[in-house]
Amino acid sequence: MKYTAKITIALKDGMLNPEARAIQHALANLGFTTESLSTARVFFVTLEAASAGAAQAEAEKMCERLLANPVIHRYEVEVAA
Amino acid sequence: MKYTAKITIALKDGMLNPEARAIQHALANLGFTTESLSTARVFFVTLEAASAGAAQAEAEKMCERLLANPVIHRYEVEVAA
Repeated sequence: MKYTAKITIALKDGMLNPEARAIQHALANLGFTTESLSTARVFFVTLEAASAGAAQAEAEKMCERLLANPVIHRYEVEVAA
Repeated sequence: MKYTAKITIALKDGMLNPEARAIQHALANLGFTTESLSTARVFFVTLEAASAGAAQAEAEKMCERLLANPVIHRYEVEVAA
């Protein structure tokens, strides 16, 4: 069956995020005041799997082998049919 | 009051996404078969606003003025207190 895994990858808490700081500055220059700003990447992966659990495990393996850097990132996988 | 806006920005349907194609190829090289793969960026913006509606409007203005390119991107804003 086909499942879509929504994989969210973000920096671990406490990691410096210069991109987020740059965006916050750019927003401030446009007159937008923000208290904090953080970023994440999302991948929607559609794959064939025997069960939602199998799709979840496959998506987690993708994170570990390619999508996320376990030293600096945390990831979250949500599977929908 | 403080609100956090979750801003999701993705390419409009039909736009080529070479990054997604590259990731799909890299996954295939590692033995992961995927039917499709798409990407999105998420920004979590914490801001001071009078109401959830005001926070939503402010976040949408941020998208229009800086975060999204209306020619190629669609965006979605969800506000939580």
